[in-house]
Amino acid sequence: MSKAKSGTLYGIGLGPGDAELVTLKAARLIGAARLVAYPAPPGGESLARKIAAGLLAEGTREIAIEVPMRVARAPAQAAYDAGAARIAEALGAGQDVVFLCEGDPLLYGSFMYLHARLSARFAVEVVPGVTSLSAASARAGLPLVARNEVLSLLPAPLDDSALEAAIRRADAVAILKLGRHLGRVRALIERLGLTRRALYVERVSMAGERLLPLAEAPDPAPYFSMILLTKGADTWLRTRS
Amino acid sequence: MSKAKSGTLYGIGLGPGDAELVTLKAARLIGAARLVAYPAPPGGESLARKIAAGLLAEGTREIAIEVPMRVARAPAQAAYDAGAARIAEALGAGQDVVFLCEGDPLLYGSFMYLHARLSARFAVEVVPGVTSLSAASARAGLPLVARNEVLSLLPAPLDDSALEAAIRRADAVAILKLGRHLGRVRALIERLGLTRRALYVERVSMAGERLLPLAEAPDPAPYFSMILLTKGADTWLRTRS
Repeated sequence: MSKAKSGTLYGIGLGPGDAELVTLKAARLIGAARLVAYPAPPGGESLARKIAAGLLAEGTREIAIEVPMRVARAPAQAAYDAGAARIAEALGAGQDVVFLCEGDPLLYGSFMYLHARLSARFAVEVVPGVTSLSAASARAGLPLVARNEVLSLLPAPLDDSALEAAIRRADAVAILKLGRHLGRVRALIERLGLTRRALYVERVSMAGERLLPLAEAPDPAPYFSMILLTKGADTWLRTRS
Repeated sequence: MSKAKSGTLYGIGLGPGDAELVTLKAARLIGAARLVAYPAPPGGESLARKIAAGLLAEGTREIAIEVPMRVARAPAQAAYDAGAARIAEALGAGQDVVFLCEGDPLLYGSFMYLHARLSARFAVEVVPGVTSLSAASARAGLPLVARNEVLSLLPAPLDDSALEAAIRRADAVAILKLGRHLGRVRALIERLGLTRRALYVERVSMAGERLLPLAEAPDPAPYFSMILLTKGADTWLRTRS
Protein backbone atom coordinates (compact mmCIF):
# COMPACT_ATOMS: atom_id res chain seq x y z
CA MET A 1 0.00 0.00 0.00
CA SER A 2 1.37 3.43 -0.85
CA LYS A 3 2.15 6.00 1.84
CA ALA A 4 -0.38 8.34 0.24
CA LYS A 5 -3.26 5.95 0.81
CA SER A 6 -2.25 5.24 4.39
CA GLY A 7 -3.57 7.24 7.32
CA THR A 8 -1.66 9.93 9.17
CA LEU A 9 -0.33 9.46 12.68
CA TYR A 10 -0.89 12.57 14.81
CA GLY A 11 1.26 12.96 17.92
CA ILE A 12 -0.67 15.37 20.09
CA GLY A 13 0.81 17.18 23.07
CA LEU A 14 -1.86 17.69 25.72
CA GLY A 15 0.10 19.92 28.07
CA PRO A 16 0.80 19.38 31.77
CA GLY A 17 -2.58 18.09 32.96
CA ASP A 18 -5.11 20.93 33.11
CA ALA A 19 -7.59 20.22 30.30
CA GLU A 20 -7.69 23.96 29.56
CA LEU A 21 -3.99 23.98 28.72
CA VAL A 22 -4.70 21.93 25.58
CA THR A 23 -4.19 23.94 22.39
CA LEU A 24 -7.01 24.81 19.99
CA LYS A 25 -5.33 22.64 17.35
CA ALA A 26 -5.10 19.65 19.64
CA ALA A 27 -8.72 20.11 20.68
CA ARG A 28 -9.84 20.22 17.04
CA LEU A 29 -7.90 17.11 16.05
CA ILE A 30 -9.01 15.13 19.10
CA GLY A 31 -12.64 16.10 18.55
CA ALA A 32 -12.45 14.94 14.93
CA ALA A 33 -10.61 11.70 15.71
CA ARG A 34 -12.24 8.35 14.95
CA LEU A 35 -9.37 6.39 16.51
CA VAL A 36 -7.18 7.54 19.39
CA ALA A 37 -4.29 5.81 21.15
CA TYR A 38 -2.58 6.61 24.45
CA PRO A 39 -0.25 5.15 27.04
CA ALA A 40 -1.81 3.76 30.22
CA PRO A 41 -0.54 2.00 33.31
CA PRO A 42 -1.49 -1.70 33.29
CA GLY A 43 -5.10 -1.93 34.44
CA GLY A 44 -5.09 1.75 35.47
CA GLU A 45 -6.35 5.09 34.23
CA SER A 46 -4.44 6.87 31.47
CA LEU A 47 -3.59 10.44 32.39
CA ALA A 48 -3.44 11.38 28.71
CA ARG A 49 -6.94 10.01 28.14
CA LYS A 50 -8.17 11.78 31.25
CA ILE A 51 -6.89 15.17 30.03
CA ALA A 52 -8.55 14.69 26.64
CA ALA A 53 -11.74 13.00 27.86
CA GLY A 54 -13.98 16.03 27.45
CA LEU A 55 -12.91 16.45 23.83
CA LEU A 56 -13.47 12.91 22.53
CA ALA A 57 -16.42 12.45 20.20
CA GLU A 58 -18.91 9.68 20.87
CA GLY A 59 -17.99 6.42 19.22
CA THR A 60 -14.29 7.15 18.90
CA ARG A 61 -12.35 3.92 19.11
CA GLU A 62 -9.44 3.68 21.54
CA ILE A 63 -6.16 1.82 21.70
CA ALA A 64 -4.67 1.79 25.21
CA ILE A 65 -0.98 0.95 25.20
CA GLU A 66 -0.35 -0.54 28.61
CA VAL A 67 3.17 0.50 29.53
CA PRO A 68 4.76 -0.88 32.71
CA MET A 69 6.22 2.07 34.65
CA ARG A 70 9.39 2.29 36.73
CA VAL A 71 10.69 -1.08 35.67
CA ALA A 72 13.39 -2.35 33.37
CA ARG A 73 13.30 -0.94 29.88
CA ALA A 74 12.57 -4.17 28.01
CA PRO A 75 8.90 -4.65 29.03
CA ALA A 76 8.09 -1.02 28.14
CA GLN A 77 9.73 -1.45 24.76
CA ALA A 78 7.72 -4.61 24.15
CA ALA A 79 4.54 -2.70 25.01
CA TYR A 80 5.40 0.01 22.49
CA ASP A 81 6.24 -2.66 19.90
CA ALA A 82 2.80 -4.17 20.33
CA GLY A 83 1.08 -0.77 20.41
CA ALA A 84 2.92 0.37 17.29
CA ALA A 85 1.85 -2.80 15.49
CA ARG A 86 -1.83 -2.12 16.26
CA ILE A 87 -1.48 1.50 15.17
CA ALA A 88 0.38 0.49 12.01
CA GLU A 89 -2.46 -1.83 11.10
CA ALA A 90 -4.97 1.03 11.30
CA LEU A 91 -2.71 3.44 9.42
CA GLY A 92 -2.09 0.83 6.74
CA ALA A 93 -5.85 0.47 6.31
CA GLY A 94 -6.07 4.20 5.58
CA GLN A 95 -7.24 5.33 9.00
CA ASP A 96 -5.80 8.34 10.82
CA VAL A 97 -4.65 7.72 14.38
CA VAL A 98 -4.46 10.43 17.04
CA PHE A 99 -1.93 9.58 19.73
CA LEU A 100 -2.51 11.43 23.01
CA CYS A 101 0.57 12.39 24.98
CA GLU A 102 0.97 14.41 28.21
CA GLY A 103 3.16 17.48 27.93
CA ASP A 104 5.05 17.94 24.70
CA PRO A 105 5.34 14.85 22.45
CA LEU A 106 9.05 15.19 21.61
CA LEU A 107 10.43 16.39 24.95
CA TYR A 108 10.78 13.27 27.11
CA GLY A 109 7.38 12.32 25.70
CA SER A 110 5.97 8.82 25.23
CA PHE A 111 5.19 9.65 21.61
CA MET A 112 8.90 9.44 20.81
CA TYR A 113 8.75 5.65 21.08
CA LEU A 114 6.00 5.45 18.48
CA HIS A 115 7.68 8.04 16.29
CA ALA A 116 10.82 5.89 16.23
CA ARG A 117 8.81 2.85 15.17
CA LEU A 118 6.43 4.39 12.65
CA SER A 119 7.76 7.61 11.10
CA ALA A 120 9.75 5.86 8.37
CA ARG A 121 6.62 4.10 7.09
CA PHE A 122 3.79 6.56 7.69
CA ALA A 123 3.04 10.27 7.50
CA VAL A 124 3.39 11.80 10.96
CA GLU A 125 2.27 15.20 12.20
CA VAL A 126 3.26 16.40 15.66
CA VAL A 127 1.30 19.05 17.57
CA PRO A 128 3.47 20.63 20.26
CA GLY A 129 2.14 21.02 23.79
CA VAL A 130 2.76 23.16 26.86
CA THR A 131 5.51 21.60 28.98
CA SER A 132 5.21 20.93 32.70
CA LEU A 133 8.25 23.17 33.06
CA SER A 134 6.41 26.17 31.61
CA ALA A 135 3.39 25.32 33.74
CA ALA A 136 5.50 25.09 36.90
CA SER A 137 7.17 28.44 36.34
CA ALA A 138 3.79 30.00 35.51
CA ARG A 139 2.18 28.59 38.66
CA ALA A 140 5.02 29.88 40.83
CA GLY A 141 5.16 33.20 38.94
CA LEU A 142 8.84 32.41 38.68
CA PRO A 143 10.74 33.70 35.63
CA LEU A 144 13.02 30.98 34.27
CA VAL A 145 15.55 32.72 32.02
CA ALA A 146 15.88 36.13 30.37
CA ARG A 147 18.37 37.81 28.07
CA ASN A 148 21.55 35.72 27.77
CA GLU A 149 20.82 33.23 30.52
CA VAL A 150 21.13 29.48 30.03
CA LEU A 151 18.46 26.96 31.00
CA SER A 152 19.16 23.23 31.27
CA LEU A 153 16.77 20.32 31.70
CA LEU A 154 18.37 17.58 33.78
CA PRO A 155 16.99 14.10 34.48
CA ALA A 156 17.59 13.26 38.14
CA PRO A 157 19.02 9.77 37.45
CA LEU A 158 22.23 11.43 36.16
CA ASP A 159 25.11 10.96 38.59
CA ASP A 160 26.12 13.71 40.99
CA SER A 161 29.14 14.89 39.02
CA ALA A 162 27.10 15.32 35.83
CA LEU A 163 24.33 17.12 37.71
CA GLU A 164 26.79 19.36 39.54
CA ALA A 165 28.62 20.36 36.35
CA ALA A 166 25.34 21.16 34.58
CA ILE A 167 24.00 23.12 37.55
CA ARG A 168 27.19 25.20 37.74
CA ARG A 169 27.04 26.00 34.01
CA ALA A 170 23.41 27.08 33.80
CA ASP A 171 21.58 30.13 35.17
CA ALA A 172 18.50 28.03 35.78
CA VAL A 173 17.84 24.30 35.75
CA ALA A 174 14.84 22.04 35.99
CA ILE A 175 15.51 18.61 37.46
CA LEU A 176 13.00 16.04 36.24
CA LYS A 177 12.24 12.35 36.87
CA LEU A 178 12.94 12.70 40.60
CA GLY A 179 11.36 9.57 42.06
CA ARG A 180 13.78 7.68 44.29
CA HIS A 181 16.57 10.13 43.36
CA LEU A 182 14.98 12.98 45.33
CA GLY A 183 17.07 12.46 48.45
CA ARG A 184 20.37 12.26 46.63
CA VAL A 185 19.59 15.31 44.48
CA ARG A 186 18.46 17.26 47.54
CA ALA A 187 21.73 16.43 49.31
CA LEU A 188 23.70 17.58 46.26
CA ILE A 189 21.83 20.89 46.10
CA GLU A 190 22.40 21.40 49.81
CA ARG A 191 26.13 20.69 49.36
CA LEU A 192 26.26 23.29 46.58
CA GLY A 193 24.63 25.84 48.88
CA LEU A 194 21.67 26.27 46.53
CA THR A 195 18.77 25.04 48.65
CA ARG A 196 17.49 28.61 49.08
CA ARG A 197 16.96 28.72 45.29
CA ALA A 198 15.26 25.33 44.97
CA LEU A 199 11.52 25.05 44.50
CA TYR A 200 9.80 21.66 44.43
CA VAL A 201 6.70 21.40 42.22
CA GLU A 202 4.41 18.37 42.24
CA ARG A 203 1.53 17.53 39.88
CA VAL A 204 1.50 21.01 38.39
CA SER A 205 -1.89 22.11 37.00
CA MET A 206 -3.52 18.87 38.24
CA ALA A 207 -5.53 17.91 41.31
CA GLY A 208 -3.11 17.60 44.22
CA GLU A 209 -0.74 20.26 42.89
CA ARG A 210 1.84 21.37 45.47
CA LEU A 211 4.66 23.91 45.46
CA LEU A 212 7.11 23.50 48.34
CA PRO A 213 10.58 24.48 49.45
CA LEU A 214 12.84 21.58 48.49
CA ALA A 215 13.45 20.83 52.18
CA GLU A 216 9.76 19.87 52.51
CA ALA A 217 9.58 17.66 49.40
CA PRO A 218 8.54 14.02 49.90
CA ASP A 219 11.17 11.29 49.43
CA PRO A 220 10.72 9.40 47.19
CA ALA A 221 9.01 11.98 44.99
CA PRO A 222 6.02 11.03 42.82
CA TYR A 223 6.43 10.70 39.06
CA PHE A 224 4.93 14.09 38.21
CA SER A 225 7.33 16.33 40.07
CA MET A 226 10.36 18.50 39.42
CA ILE A 227 12.82 20.84 41.08
CA LEU A 228 13.23 24.37 39.71
CA LEU A 229 16.59 25.86 40.60
CA THR A 230 16.66 29.59 39.76
CA LYS A 231 17.73 32.86 41.31
CA GLY A 232 14.11 33.97 41.42
CA ALA A 233 13.08 31.03 43.59
CA ASP A 234 14.99 32.67 46.41
CA THR A 235 12.46 35.51 46.53
CA TRP A 236 9.56 33.13 46.02
CA LEU A 237 10.57 31.02 49.00
CA ARG A 238 11.15 34.02 51.25
CA THR A 239 7.83 35.68 50.48
CA ARG A 240 5.45 32.73 50.27
CA SER A 241 2.64 32.98 52.70
CA MET B 1 -6.41 50.87 47.42
CA SER B 2 -6.16 47.29 48.67
CA LYS B 3 -4.75 44.49 46.53
CA ALA B 4 -8.11 42.72 46.72
CA LYS B 5 -9.95 45.59 45.03
CA SER B 6 -7.34 45.94 42.32
CA GLY B 7 -7.55 44.10 39.03
CA THR B 8 -5.54 41.02 38.14
CA LEU B 9 -2.72 41.07 35.62
CA TYR B 10 -2.82 38.03 33.34
CA GLY B 11 0.37 37.11 31.52
CA ILE B 12 -0.79 35.01 28.60
CA GLY B 13 1.51 32.81 26.52
CA LEU B 14 0.27 32.70 22.93
CA GLY B 15 2.63 30.04 21.63
CA PRO B 16 5.01 30.30 18.67
CA GLY B 17 2.83 32.12 16.16
CA ASP B 18 0.16 29.78 14.74
CA ALA B 19 -3.14 31.06 16.17
CA GLU B 20 -4.26 27.44 16.61
CA LEU B 21 -1.40 26.78 19.03
CA VAL B 22 -3.04 29.06 21.61
CA THR B 23 -4.40 27.12 24.60
CA LEU B 24 -8.10 26.89 25.43
CA LYS B 25 -7.42 28.83 28.63
CA ALA B 26 -5.63 31.64 26.82
CA ALA B 27 -8.43 31.80 24.25
CA ARG B 28 -11.05 32.05 26.98
CA LEU B 29 -9.23 34.80 28.88
CA ILE B 30 -8.47 36.81 25.74
CA GLY B 31 -12.06 36.56 24.56
CA ALA B 32 -13.32 37.82 27.92
CA ALA B 33 -10.77 40.64 28.20
CA ARG B 34 -11.92 44.26 28.31
CA LEU B 35 -8.35 45.58 28.27
CA VAL B 36 -5.35 43.93 26.64
CA ALA B 37 -1.72 45.02 26.44
CA TYR B 38 1.11 43.77 24.24
CA PRO B 39 4.60 44.66 23.03
CA ALA B 40 4.91 46.16 19.57
CA PRO B 41 7.73 47.52 17.45
CA PRO B 42 7.58 51.32 17.22
CA GLY B 43 4.99 52.16 14.60
CA GLY B 44 4.79 48.51 13.51
CA GLU B 45 2.51 45.52 13.88
CA SER B 46 2.59 43.55 17.13
CA LEU B 47 3.09 39.83 16.54
CA ALA B 48 1.39 39.06 19.84
CA ARG B 49 -1.68 41.06 18.83
CA LYS B 50 -1.69 39.41 15.42
CA ILE B 51 -1.72 35.91 16.94
CA ALA B 52 -4.61 36.84 19.25
CA ALA B 53 -6.53 39.04 16.79
CA GLY B 54 -9.25 36.50 16.02
CA LEU B 55 -10.00 36.03 19.71
CA LEU B 56 -10.43 39.66 20.79
CA ALA B 57 -13.96 40.78 21.55
CA GLU B 58 -15.33 43.91 19.95
CA GLY B 59 -14.68 47.04 21.98
CA THR B 60 -11.71 45.63 23.90
CA ARG B 61 -9.33 48.46 24.74
CA GLU B 62 -5.66 48.04 23.88
CA ILE B 63 -2.36 49.25 25.30
CA ALA B 64 0.51 48.85 22.84
CA ILE B 65 3.91 48.98 24.54
CA GLU B 66 6.26 50.18 21.83
CA VAL B 67 9.56 48.47 22.56
CA PRO B 68 12.62 49.39 20.50
CA MET B 69 14.22 46.14 19.26
CA ARG B 70 17.90 45.23 18.85
CA VAL B 71 19.16 48.38 20.55
CA ALA B 72 20.75 49.20 23.87
CA ARG B 73 18.83 47.99 26.88
CA ALA B 74 17.93 51.38 28.37
CA PRO B 75 15.27 52.47 25.82
CA ALA B 76 13.52 49.12 26.07
CA GLN B 77 13.51 49.37 29.85
CA ALA B 78 12.06 52.89 29.62
CA ALA B 79 9.31 51.57 27.33
CA TYR B 80 8.43 48.85 29.85
CA ASP B 81 8.49 51.43 32.67
CA ALA B 82 5.96 53.54 30.80
CA GLY B 83 3.85 50.52 29.80
CA ALA B 84 3.86 49.20 33.36
CA ALA B 85 2.69 52.59 34.63
CA ARG B 86 -0.31 52.56 32.28
CA ILE B 87 -1.14 48.98 33.22
CA ALA B 88 -0.75 49.76 36.93
CA GLU B 89 -3.22 52.61 36.57
CA ALA B 90 -5.85 50.26 35.13
CA LEU B 91 -5.16 47.57 37.71
CA GLY B 92 -5.35 50.14 40.50
CA ALA B 93 -8.76 51.19 39.21
CA GLY B 94 -9.96 47.61 39.60
CA GLN B 95 -9.68 46.56 35.98
CA ASP B 96 -8.13 43.26 34.87
CA VAL B 97 -5.42 43.50 32.24
CA VAL B 98 -4.55 40.70 29.84
CA PHE B 99 -0.98 40.94 28.61
CA LEU B 100 -0.36 39.08 25.34
CA CYS B 101 3.04 37.49 24.92
CA GLU B 102 4.45 35.31 22.13
CA GLY B 103 5.69 31.89 23.22
CA ASP B 104 5.83 31.23 26.94
CA PRO B 105 5.64 34.29 29.22
CA LEU B 106 8.44 33.33 31.61
CA LEU B 107 10.92 31.75 29.18
CA TYR B 108 12.78 34.65 27.55
CA GLY B 109 9.33 36.28 27.32
CA SER B 110 8.54 39.99 27.28
CA PHE B 111 6.09 39.47 30.12
CA MET B 112 9.00 39.04 32.51
CA TYR B 113 9.69 42.77 32.37
CA LEU B 114 6.15 43.59 33.47
CA HIS B 115 6.17 40.82 36.04
CA ALA B 116 9.28 42.36 37.61
CA ARG B 117 7.61 45.76 37.78
CA LEU B 118 4.11 44.80 38.90
CA SER B 119 4.00 41.46 40.73
CA ALA B 120 4.83 42.93 44.14
CA ARG B 121 1.85 45.30 43.96
CA PHE B 122 -0.83 43.39 42.06
CA ALA B 123 -2.24 39.89 41.72
CA VAL B 124 -0.66 38.17 38.73
CA GLU B 125 -1.72 34.97 36.97
CA VAL B 126 0.49 33.47 34.27
CA VAL B 127 -0.86 31.15 31.58
CA PRO B 128 1.96 29.07 30.07
CA GLY B 129 2.29 28.77 26.30
CA VAL B 130 3.81 26.43 23.75
CA THR B 131 7.47 27.36 23.16
CA SER B 132 8.99 27.91 19.73
CA LEU B 133 11.40 25.12 20.68
CA SER B 134 8.59 22.59 21.02
CA ALA B 135 7.06 23.88 17.79
CA ALA B 136 10.35 23.59 15.93
CA SER B 137 10.95 20.02 17.03
CA ALA B 138 7.34 19.14 16.19
CA ARG B 139 7.59 20.68 12.73
CA ALA B 140 10.82 18.81 12.02
CA GLY B 141 9.50 15.59 13.59
CA LEU B 142 12.72 15.68 15.53
CA PRO B 143 12.80 14.21 19.04
CA LEU B 144 14.68 16.53 21.40
CA VAL B 145 15.57 14.45 24.46
CA ALA B 146 14.50 11.11 25.92
CA ARG B 147 15.33 9.10 29.03
CA ASN B 148 18.36 10.57 30.81
CA GLU B 149 19.40 13.04 28.15
CA VAL B 150 20.15 16.69 28.89
CA LEU B 151 18.70 19.62 26.94
CA SER B 152 20.14 23.15 27.17
CA LEU B 153 18.77 26.42 25.83
CA LEU B 154 21.61 28.72 24.82
CA PRO B 155 21.37 32.37 23.74
CA ALA B 156 23.68 32.92 20.76
CA PRO B 157 25.27 36.10 22.19
CA LEU B 158 27.18 33.94 24.70
CA ASP B 159 30.87 33.75 23.84
CA ASP B 160 32.32 30.76 22.03
CA SER B 161 33.87 29.13 25.08
CA ALA B 162 30.58 29.23 27.00
CA LEU B 163 28.66 27.89 24.00
CA GLU B 164 31.21 25.16 23.38
CA ALA B 165 31.20 23.99 27.00
CA ALA B 166 27.41 23.88 27.07
CA ILE B 167 27.20 22.07 23.73
CA ARG B 168 29.68 19.42 24.90
CA ARG B 169 27.75 18.82 28.14
CA ALA B 170 24.29 18.45 26.64
CA ASP B 171 22.72 15.74 24.48
CA ALA B 172 20.69 18.34 22.64
CA VAL B 173 20.78 22.13 22.52
CA ALA B 174 18.67 24.90 21.06
CA ILE B 175 20.56 28.07 20.21
CA LEU B 176 18.31 31.12 20.28
CA LYS B 177 18.60 34.85 19.53
CA LEU B 178 20.81 34.20 16.52
CA GLY B 179 20.66 37.53 14.64
CA ARG B 180 24.12 38.80 13.80
CA HIS B 181 25.69 35.94 15.79
CA LEU B 182 24.66 33.35 13.19
CA GLY B 183 27.99 33.36 11.36
CA ARG B 184 30.08 33.00 14.49
CA VAL B 185 27.88 30.25 15.92
CA ARG B 186 27.90 28.40 12.61
CA ALA B 187 31.70 28.53 12.51
CA LEU B 188 31.87 27.18 16.06
CA ILE B 189 29.53 24.28 15.24
CA GLU B 190 31.61 23.50 12.15
CA ARG B 191 34.78 23.53 14.26
CA LEU B 192 33.18 21.08 16.68
CA GLY B 193 32.33 18.76 13.78
CA LEU B 194 28.60 19.00 14.54
CA THR B 195 27.24 20.65 11.39
CA ARG B 196 25.65 17.38 10.29
CA ARG B 197 23.48 17.52 13.42
CA ALA B 198 22.47 21.18 13.10
CA LEU B 199 19.04 22.17 11.84
CA TYR B 200 18.12 25.82 11.29
CA VAL B 201 14.47 26.75 11.89
CA GLU B 202 13.04 30.15 10.98
CA ARG B 203 9.60 31.61 11.83
CA VAL B 204 8.27 28.26 13.00
CA SER B 205 4.49 27.87 12.65
CA MET B 206 4.22 31.30 10.97
CA ALA B 207 4.02 32.47 7.36
CA GLY B 208 7.50 32.20 5.87
CA GLU B 209 8.47 29.20 8.01
CA ARG B 210 11.68 27.53 6.82
CA LEU B 211 13.68 24.52 7.97
CA LEU B 212 17.18 24.35 6.51
CA PRO B 213 20.54 22.69 7.02
CA LEU B 214 22.63 25.15 9.03
CA ALA B 215 24.95 25.62 6.05
CA GLU B 216 22.04 27.23 4.15
CA ALA B 217 20.90 29.57 6.92
CA PRO B 218 20.89 33.33 6.20
CA ASP B 219 23.48 35.55 7.90
CA PRO B 220 22.42 37.58 9.79
CA ALA B 221 19.47 35.45 10.87
CA PRO B 222 16.07 37.04 11.52
CA TYR B 223 14.79 37.45 15.07
CA PHE B 224 12.48 34.44 15.01
CA SER B 225 14.99 31.71 14.31
CA MET B 226 16.95 29.04 16.14
CA ILE B 227 19.40 26.21 15.66
CA LEU B 228 18.52 22.73 16.92
CA LEU B 229 21.56 20.60 17.57
CA THR B 230 20.59 16.98 18.18
CA LYS B 231 21.60 13.50 17.13
CA GLY B 232 18.28 13.06 15.37
CA ALA B 233 18.89 16.05 13.09
CA ASP B 234 21.53 13.95 11.37
CA THR B 235 18.85 11.64 10.00
CA TRP B 236 16.50 14.52 9.25
CA LEU B 237 19.10 16.29 7.15
CA ARG B 238 20.08 13.13 5.25
CA THR B 239 16.53 12.13 4.39
CA ARG B 240 14.88 15.48 3.67
CA SER B 241 13.39 15.66 0.22
